[in-house]
Amino acid sequence: MLQDYSLLRIPGPTPIPPSVGHAMNQPMIGHRGKETTALIQRIKPRLKKLFATENDMIMLTGSGTAGLETAVVNVASAGDEVLVIVTGAFGDRFAKICDAHNMKTHRMDVTWGDAANPSAVAAFLQENKQVKAVFMTHCETSTGVLNPVAEISQVVQANSDALVIVDGVSSAAGTETKIDEWGIDVYATGSQKAMMLPPGLAFLAVSERAWDVIEKNEESRFYFDLKTYKKNLDNDAVPYTPSIPLLFALEQALTLMEAEGMEEVYDRHTVMRDMVRAAVKTWNIPLLTEDTYGSPTVTAVQPDNFDPEALRKLLKEQFNLSVAGGQQHLKGKIFRIGHMGYCSPADVLQMLSIIELALVQLDVEISLGEGVRAAQEVYLENK
Amino acid sequence: MLQDYSLLRIPGPTPIPPSVGHAMNQPMIGHRGKETTALIQRIKPRLKKLFATENDMIMLTGSGTAGLETAVVNVASAGDEVLVIVTGAFGDRFAKICDAHNMKTHRMDVTWGDAANPSAVAAFLQENKQVKAVFMTHCETSTGVLNPVAEISQVVQANSDALVIVDGVSSAAGTETKIDEWGIDVYATGSQKAMMLPPGLAFLAVSERAWDVIEKNEESRFYFDLKTYKKNLDNDAVPYTPSIPLLFALEQALTLMEAEGMEEVYDRHTVMRDMVRAAVKTWNIPLLTEDTYGSPTVTAVQPDNFDPEALRKLLKEQFNLSVAGGQQHLKGKIFRIGHMGYCSPADVLQMLSIIELALVQLDVEISLGEGVRAAQEVYLENK
Repeated sequence: MLQDYSLLRIPGPTPIPPSVGHAMNQPMIGHRGKETTALIQRIKPRLKKLFATENDMIMLTGSGTAGLETAVVNVASAGDEVLVIVTGAFGDRFAKICDAHNMKTHRMDVTWGDAANPSAVAAFLQENKQVKAVFMTHCETSTGVLNPVAEISQVVQANSDALVIVDGVSSAAGTETKIDEWGIDVYATGSQKAMMLPPGLAFLAVSERAWDVIEKNEESRFYFDLKTYKKNLDNDAVPYTPSIPLLFALEQALTLMEAEGMEEVYDRHTVMRDMVRAAVKTWNIPLLTEDTYGSPTVTAVQPDNFDPEALRKLLKEQFNLSVAGGQQHLKGKIFRIGHMGYCSPADVLQMLSIIELALVQLDVEISLGEGVRAAQEVYLENK
Repeated sequence: MLQDYSLLRIPGPTPIPPSVGHAMNQPMIGHRGKETTALIQRIKPRLKKLFATENDMIMLTGSGTAGLETAVVNVASAGDEVLVIVTGAFGDRFAKICDAHNMKTHRMDVTWGDAANPSAVAAFLQENKQVKAVFMTHCETSTGVLNPVAEISQVVQANSDALVIVDGVSSAAGTETKIDEWGIDVYATGSQKAMMLPPGLAFLAVSERAWDVIEKNEESRFYFDLKTYKKNLDNDAVPYTPSIPLLFALEQALTLMEAEGMEEVYDRHTVMRDMVRAAVKTWNIPLLTEDTYGSPTVTAVQPDNFDPEALRKLLKEQFNLSVAGGQQHLKGKIFRIGHMGYCSPADVLQMLSIIELALVQLDVEISLGEGVRAAQEVYLENK
């Protein structure tokens, strides 16, 4: 097989653009020097614009999970009642973090593959006014569901004083997120998905209302204390040594996204989702999630006539194409395709043409080219 | 459009593997130091093996054309009679170089798209025993013809004392070349095609018989004097400052080709050629060259019902996919697809799926997916 060749279509980490890789290769700079201050000054307004918020986006060196835990330990403390809407593995992670910090965690479990139900949230909150925060996942990476975060946020605000906390890790920059308009109090996301960056950076936006809670919150924390980040960011700084190459990369990724235009970025993701879904339907293979809640960034497929692990193995062995498997109880039952960030409709066509080759080899009854054709048609309708 | 994204499918320069790019990024080393000596020592035997020759491959910093001119000025001098077999723009270049050096150049022009005819060469040489060298192109990049070099070489040896000079620029490492077995006296090639390297290096293999001629040849030359290179190479050195990053890159590219295995490398190219040709035939678009002489590295397509320039423009604008146009009298009449080097069957499927999208937009009557399907079938038959 052609060496040093890989196609990475898992739902993160995702491929990064060459210029982002080159940006990381610049000489190190001191994190307390003028260069870093200037870099943060340049990045700050652009991140706010990307996420449609008036509040500064806090940057934290860590994974997406570090971002989630930061959200948790800043808005609640041991013994506090919180609601976690669990639509998959990453809702479950939010719940586990709350549990680890001894919060009184109410889980609202939703069948994996379904979206969260705003009415159920409303009903729960009407009966549980003491809940201090509601945690939810925008795109549930484990199922490919895009939860109706704007609606749920509205419902939370209408029925309680709880803060609205959103995990935006696999949705940020792949689908529109209006932090302020939607009333999100703490938004946490990571770098390694649609933002076209490597893993290692978490971003958090905090509302005025949330700052009031955070100031008074007594949960023990040091590295994850948002107050420290806020104080530093007001002076164009970060409290602890940042991953300098990731900041270089971030500036370049922002430049690329701005050059494409965020409307176009979001449209591209929608088209890629629709291309993938059209192909899978043409192959007569069930999708895990219904169209209404299909995420523009990741699609989960639940075959009923072949082993998804056999498909993944073949794709990896024959083409060095990586797609993801299922998590927890969906392990071995689904495969998940990432179509976000540095990924074009042409890349989607390539992936689909390879999946067809693998399906045929697994004796799945499809016609070669039919899924590609369905995706091509979607492209042409939307170009 | 997604920024910093491009698909380069011209017949060279070709994309380079990431690890080759990284290899180039190493700190510079002195060209007279031990590191360079050791590097050349490591490269030498591997280059010989790649080209199936017992003679050292001379490395020259310059383009493929520099390699061709080096071949010319070393084996003949002003006034000498030479035969140049011209099957396209690069045969023409050989002739122009001979003309520039005031040689008495006999051109054997072949219709572009056809291959050179060994019998015609035999007939010519029988009548022209005074010819000192016969120049030919292995893969004619301008037409996608792979000339029967082994056969022609045999014919030259059987009918004259002329040296056999071969341009291997767009065939080297994309299709088997047995320099010694075929009796090639001077073989010249460049780095930027199937060798998965950037432009900037030329390689030359010289037979014992050719060295005898070269030693006595009085044509003025300095940078291009092969004697100087030979003397240096015997001491694991190069006479003039080499492009150090290209030597780093060469070592890594050799590692990648060896890891894949040259048999597999050649098979991959053959399959990619057959995939492209199958798709084009399915679309009912004429190929410039018949199957027998279709090159494994580049394919020329000669549409009769649409403007190839309109196709190229659309591919570039909509997908940043570059394919080449025609040269000289074929300008505006053909387009040429490169499928060599760091290019996989998956990349070919991607390219074909995009070309289909463009053809439909140009109102060419094809069915979406049918060319992809034809190529997929070729892949499955050969995997």
